[in-house]
Amino acid sequence: MAGDGTDQRALQYEQTLMYGRYTQELGVYAKEEAARIRESGQRRSVSDRSLHEYKGRCAKCRICTVRCQKFLISRVGEDWIFLILLGLVMALVSWVVDFCIAICLQAQKWMYGGLDSNLFLQYLAWVTYPVVLITFSAGFTQILAPQAVGSGIPEMKTILRGVVLKEYLTFKTFVAKVIGLTCALGSGMPLGKEGPFVHIASLCAALLSKFMSLFGGIYENEARNIEMLAAACAVGVGCCFAAPIGGVLFSIEVTSTFFAVRNYWRGFFAATFSAFIFRVLAVWNKDEETITALFKTRFRLDFPFDLQELPAFAVIGIASGFGGALFVYLNRLIVQFIRKQKTITKFLMKKRLLYPALVTLLISTLTFPPGFGQFMAGKLTQKESLVTLLDNRTWAKQGIAEEFDYLGNSQAWQHPQVNVFVTLVIFIVMKFWMSALATTIPVPCGAFMPVFVIGAAFGRLVGESMAAWFPDGIHMDGTIYNIVPGGYAVVGAAALSGAVTHTVSTAVIVFELTGQISHILPVMIAVILANAVAQALQPSLYDSIIRIKKLPYLPELGWGHHEKYNIRVEDIMIRDVRYITLNCTYRDLHNVLLTGHLKTLALVESTESMILLGSIERAQLQSLLSQQLGHPRRLEYIRERSNEDKKKRLSVASSQNSDDCSQRASQEVRFQITTEESSFSPTRTTPQKPLKPALKRSSVVERPTELPTSPSDNSGNALKHLFCASPDAEALEDDGDVEDYMTMREIAEWEEMQLDEQVNFNNCKIDPAPFQLVERTSLHKTHTIFSLLGLDHAYVTSIGRLIGVVSLKELRKAIEGSVTVKGVKVRPPLASFRDSGTSSSENEATELHKLWDRHKNMPLPRENTTSSESDEKPL
Amino acid sequence: MAGDGTDQRALQYEQTLMYGRYTQELGVYAKEEAARIRESGQRRSVSDRSLHEYKGRCAKCRICTVRCQKFLISRVGEDWIFLILLGLVMALVSWVVDFCIAICLQAQKWMYGGLDSNLFLQYLAWVTYPVVLITFSAGFTQILAPQAVGSGIPEMKTILRGVVLKEYLTFKTFVAKVIGLTCALGSGMPLGKEGPFVHIASLCAALLSKFMSLFGGIYENEARNIEMLAAACAVGVGCCFAAPIGGVLFSIEVTSTFFAVRNYWRGFFAATFSAFIFRVLAVWNKDEETITALFKTRFRLDFPFDLQELPAFAVIGIASGFGGALFVYLNRLIVQFIRKQKTITKFLMKKRLLYPALVTLLISTLTFPPGFGQFMAGKLTQKESLVTLLDNRTWAKQGIAEEFDYLGNSQAWQHPQVNVFVTLVIFIVMKFWMSALATTIPVPCGAFMPVFVIGAAFGRLVGESMAAWFPDGIHMDGTIYNIVPGGYAVVGAAALSGAVTHTVSTAVIVFELTGQISHILPVMIAVILANAVAQALQPSLYDSIIRIKKLPYLPELGWGHHEKYNIRVEDIMIRDVRYITLNCTYRDLHNVLLTGHLKTLALVESTESMILLGSIERAQLQSLLSQQLGHPRRLEYIRERSNEDKKKRLSVASSQNSDDCSQRASQEVRFQITTEESSFSPTRTTPQKPLKPALKRSSVVERPTELPTSPSDNSGNALKHLFCASPDAEALEDDGDVEDYMTMREIAEWEEMQLDEQVNFNNCKIDPAPFQLVERTSLHKTHTIFSLLGLDHAYVTSIGRLIGVVSLKELRKAIEGSVTVKGVKVRPPLASFRDSGTSSSENEATELHKLWDRHKNMPLPRENTTSSESDEKPL
Repeated sequence: MAGDGTDQRALQYEQTLMYGRYTQELGVYAKEEAARIRESGQRRSVSDRSLHEYKGRCAKCRICTVRCQKFLISRVGEDWIFLILLGLVMALVSWVVDFCIAICLQAQKWMYGGLDSNLFLQYLAWVTYPVVLITFSAGFTQILAPQAVGSGIPEMKTILRGVVLKEYLTFKTFVAKVIGLTCALGSGMPLGKEGPFVHIASLCAALLSKFMSLFGGIYENEARNIEMLAAACAVGVGCCFAAPIGGVLFSIEVTSTFFAVRNYWRGFFAATFSAFIFRVLAVWNKDEETITALFKTRFRLDFPFDLQELPAFAVIGIASGFGGALFVYLNRLIVQFIRKQKTITKFLMKKRLLYPALVTLLISTLTFPPGFGQFMAGKLTQKESLVTLLDNRTWAKQGIAEEFDYLGNSQAWQHPQVNVFVTLVIFIVMKFWMSALATTIPVPCGAFMPVFVIGAAFGRLVGESMAAWFPDGIHMDGTIYNIVPGGYAVVGAAALSGAVTHTVSTAVIVFELTGQISHILPVMIAVILANAVAQALQPSLYDSIIRIKKLPYLPELGWGHHEKYNIRVEDIMIRDVRYITLNCTYRDLHNVLLTGHLKTLALVESTESMILLGSIERAQLQSLLSQQLGHPRRLEYIRERSNEDKKKRLSVASSQNSDDCSQRASQEVRFQITTEESSFSPTRTTPQKPLKPALKRSSVVERPTELPTSPSDNSGNALKHLFCASPDAEALEDDGDVEDYMTMREIAEWEEMQLDEQVNFNNCKIDPAPFQLVERTSLHKTHTIFSLLGLDHAYVTSIGRLIGVVSLKELRKAIEGSVTVKGVKVRPPLASFRDSGTSSSENEATELHKLWDRHKNMPLPRENTTSSESDEKPL
Repeated sequence: MAGDGTDQRALQYEQTLMYGRYTQELGVYAKEEAARIRESGQRRSVSDRSLHEYKGRCAKCRICTVRCQKFLISRVGEDWIFLILLGLVMALVSWVVDFCIAICLQAQKWMYGGLDSNLFLQYLAWVTYPVVLITFSAGFTQILAPQAVGSGIPEMKTILRGVVLKEYLTFKTFVAKVIGLTCALGSGMPLGKEGPFVHIASLCAALLSKFMSLFGGIYENEARNIEMLAAACAVGVGCCFAAPIGGVLFSIEVTSTFFAVRNYWRGFFAATFSAFIFRVLAVWNKDEETITALFKTRFRLDFPFDLQELPAFAVIGIASGFGGALFVYLNRLIVQFIRKQKTITKFLMKKRLLYPALVTLLISTLTFPPGFGQFMAGKLTQKESLVTLLDNRTWAKQGIAEEFDYLGNSQAWQHPQVNVFVTLVIFIVMKFWMSALATTIPVPCGAFMPVFVIGAAFGRLVGESMAAWFPDGIHMDGTIYNIVPGGYAVVGAAALSGAVTHTVSTAVIVFELTGQISHILPVMIAVILANAVAQALQPSLYDSIIRIKKLPYLPELGWGHHEKYNIRVEDIMIRDVRYITLNCTYRDLHNVLLTGHLKTLALVESTESMILLGSIERAQLQSLLSQQLGHPRRLEYIRERSNEDKKKRLSVASSQNSDDCSQRASQEVRFQITTEESSFSPTRTTPQKPLKPALKRSSVVERPTELPTSPSDNSGNALKHLFCASPDAEALEDDGDVEDYMTMREIAEWEEMQLDEQVNFNNCKIDPAPFQLVERTSLHKTHTIFSLLGLDHAYVTSIGRLIGVVSLKELRKAIEGSVTVKGVKVRPPLASFRDSGTSSSENEATELHKLWDRHKNMPLPRENTTSSESDEKPL
């Protein structure tokens, strides 16, 4: 059964290879496959029958087993099976990664602790360990899969928009990402794991999908795969923080522009299952007594905070907003600085691993606990810092730190000389730039967790200040409720991470992380304020990375940009559209292909009518042209001519229509050849070779067989210019048996002749319904449609006539504000009605006129032309 | 300034009245308005200058004030101002409604308590009070705004899809909904408020939007209004439960199919602000010490539940799934039963208030505390029951209820004869059918809260059983942790309400309601299982109501219906499309209008080419036709003829082209009239009257001026048949001054002549880019596109040629499964690639042929027709 599946898979692979050559071939293949499936069905029924015929006691058992197997396999296609598997795999991966990271960190501590006799050795150990790990991580990912570098969220955002990013969802990348991430986080650098986990989960989903497609066909549906990837993103965040709800929401906010609510349950289901397994593993490993939150807090339930504390929370929110924007800016600045400094860059490019090593060296030197690290709790890992920051006890009782009995890890925050406020300030400032710097290292890493910790520290700072300011807490009906600085830390963490990522759902994540929801209102208020400030100042970290990496993504419409409602497609569209007409010649095709660089070209009925019929991919046209001017056809022509010459010698007939004749013949032979290629297994393997690239691109590019002409040949040159293909040596050898060659002049003449022929679009894949907009469509609506449908370009039509084109580029420009509406436009009344599709203006009326006139010019069998003319007059 | 705004508004109102008559008018109006705006701008600058010129001390102050005012007014357009206002208003409304409900309920208790001397009087008081309130509520809403009846969520779902439901967002409805809801909930019936609150919030948003549009123009944008409505839904749920996050998520799940993530912050912002104010009001009213959860629980944090308890939670989830489906089924059954029983229905229809009164009587009799109510905690209000059910103490220690000291309201669950298990079971069973019945009463009410309480009771039952089964709790490392039945109640509440509404976000709502998130995993697991079961069995309550009310909504694609990926548009489209051609006659138009009932008709180039140019609304065509055959034109004709007669008497000239002449003249005069109408203020007010309906419909329907012909007239009849308009008496009177009448036969002849003329589309609003699909688009993608863009229909084209149409109806049929793909189709390989737009099949090739052939038939100045023929041969 599985073998059968593999066969079909292989068959389809072959077809993929074939597809995009000639559609005729596809038809043949479809028939073949139908026959093959029918056959295999018969075979299967035969095997069933043979089972029935099989006498014996175990026959029934076997039948039963077979049926069960069939049932199970049919079930494999169900979504929930896939989601459970995905959740399970991700929980295991997450747990294993966490386990390895913990071991790595413990090893560092152990080394550092064991060498406490000698400070220099201790320093060496403290510094060398992360440098080695980071360098290994950077080198490993560089070698295995450079796509694994970085967060992965920007890439997933782009992929979910429908863009195909090569190599981002392969097994190699998976391995590189998992191992690279483990090493990077094991080094103790201020790096996060939520971005890479999103990527890892998506990789899992993609690989699982590939694996499952061995059993059922549903896994090959592209739309479904994208839905599954969206669910996988939720799983990634969900099992990273053991926060299923926050994970789903965060992944939606971070990756989607428009979210299909029908995918909602998928995310929840998989993320919950994953978080459940992730926590169950911890219980089984005796880490925890039962399933609880990752960073459990124990704030009092009765009076979590007072109304009068809300201004402080609002201050945290606003400050976090500025801080978040600064972080994004700093991060981008570092990347751009390194890119700009050419001498440095050159040096670093040669020694790719030098930059990570240097950065790690710098950071780990600064955090060396006996050194500067003593002022910033340097010996605590990220997780330990967070636990201490969320502690429900107040550190600075009465404003002085002495009275507090620092237990366990909290001791790290205590310093004999400086008080806890200074420690916190140093921690925040140092970690801030360290995190911004560390996330530029080319290893798999995110920035969420470092930012989260910095935010918690900032919140703690405000909280401790409040506690010092109001040492007796807030009085209420005689009861004294002390201020809980831990609550401030929770608020700060949510606010700063929300500001950096431009998400609101960090609020939910902190509730799930801490297991307490009592501070819901302060957290929500702070997060919203932080978002408002940060979004006004900077793009989100992920959008910033998208811009740095120049990924093909459409920016969002910002918070309430009203002017976007007033810009219309006619203001931003390109009016000079490249098009081809239905009755154009190959020469026109050639010229159009030479001048433009768009991926698709519009097909219109004629230059006069400009009625849009469809769009054709550039590659299709190139293959049409190469077919027309290709070597095989010329060979045919030569053979034909030689035959003719023989005939001529026999009878001197009228030679006017010989050209035509030869062409028809050549056509027939050509098609015979292609049919041969498709129906028989490849005896000549070479012609299939050029088709391989088609597998990797969504558009089908055909590599033309190169013409064996000299560079001086005019049109041969043009073709070369178009295709940039290397000379096909094999084809040359292959066709070496044809004895008769044309001279250069003859070839040029022949090509000129061929170019004057009308294009035959029958072999061409035409997109018969490209997306169309109207001139009056607002930018807002256009943005919505482009992001909803994942469009790349759309034609602007007016009553069937093509008048312009809008591509992502124009839209991006318009949104980023480089296009402004000229002058002050009086917004036409009732514009919103017109947005809904029905538009009517004088402009269109005149266009309708043109169509009208055209019709009148046609010889119609009616006499009412005069009356219709009189009708038109009043206009 | 405000007056200026009002002026503009009034002006636009006039334009709305005007719009849809003739586009010429619109052009004139646009120019006029532009002139007016320019003028007012000049006036404004003049006033500015005059201010500057004004000498004196307060001049600067005034300028400053004016500037501040301008600034403030310009800020009014910002989203966040609107959202804050919305949140504020909703919090106030919510608080006032809650307050009134509490007073009503207290009054009932007080009456009941005061009359404890006489059981009969007590019963009368217990029963009469809710009957009066419910009857008043039903009567009030019936009289003021019948649209206020019911939940409102189904209607909001439909409105957010882009369908315009009349009268659902008016001030009347707002008043009816608020007062009706207060009375209905004050009666103590098992009714909820979350659905009505969603509706009330949307009403608030719509009214606020109208109010704000007095200051700024942005509030008139349709797209923005829908975004604001979506935010309003979140506010509604958010301030109903003081649960901002859950509110946002619940509203998304319940109302949207595709959610724009850019609206996310709006919902969060407004809902948080609203929840904040709502709780602050409670604090100020001294109800609460500080801002806390509505139904605060005090479960222990350390060991909330054990892994071994998870199966019990799963059981709650699955049972709730079945229960939820049963509830929806029961609710629908009751509605259908009442509808079917014609004798009952007739009686009830006559006495509209009898049904609510009867239902209330029945329910309140059964809950009468000294009667049957003692077995089901009848004296507790909904809120009190919930509080007791979520109590963190165990009721049934050691399996026997005696030991427990029932305090306060919890006493109600104790009964001397029966134990707490029986009470709970009776409560669940009785409340179940009571809630299903009560929600069919025609008052503003929801079903969420009753279901939530039932779920909590069910969870409590399971929890108490578990506590009785494991009296010593779960042993863990020597520590004994008792089972917390309150936690089970939380799980049950979330699961059952999730099952009824088909949402996952009820999980978040319970966390926010209880203020504890410790049971996150059990809740998530139960909710997901409940959803899985319920979605497999029944539609959600809201979808069920949508079906009962037959609202125009597209059903969802269910959980993983794989076959939907394999159905294509060609399987479901209607091939026999009604269309009109560019050069059709009025007769064709007439025939097309007579036969079809579609709202829009396709406009194609010609019957041969079938190239789709656009679509025209039926109403537009009707107006075209009525214009052509209308009274004014005929009067012109008559006048013309009489002039001609006079001329004839003078000189006997050639009368062949008189017809043509007369027509031209009539045309001119007609246009003169229309220009008059538009440029001057209405001296004749009657012609504007028929345009009023246009305001209420999104499509512009023009009521034709009726022809004063006898019923025997053929085409006059036809027109009547089309328009069903009553004879316009005024028009008749108005034109009574024309002395010359035509005979019936003449009229018929004249109309026949008019019908043979070619249609002039210049005055017609054409949608130049109707949405197009390809035959091979999958049902899945079609559904996505329809719900994303809120489409009503889409044309199916193939290389510009119209080949079919798909409307919501076909799509709905296909999704509900009445259309199956004929036979077993071999799915063409690489279908998913083809989904992405590029499709190519033999079918299309032949169609391209046709276009091709057509082109060849045209006299093109080329000689290569033979060569192109030879090209085509191999096909």
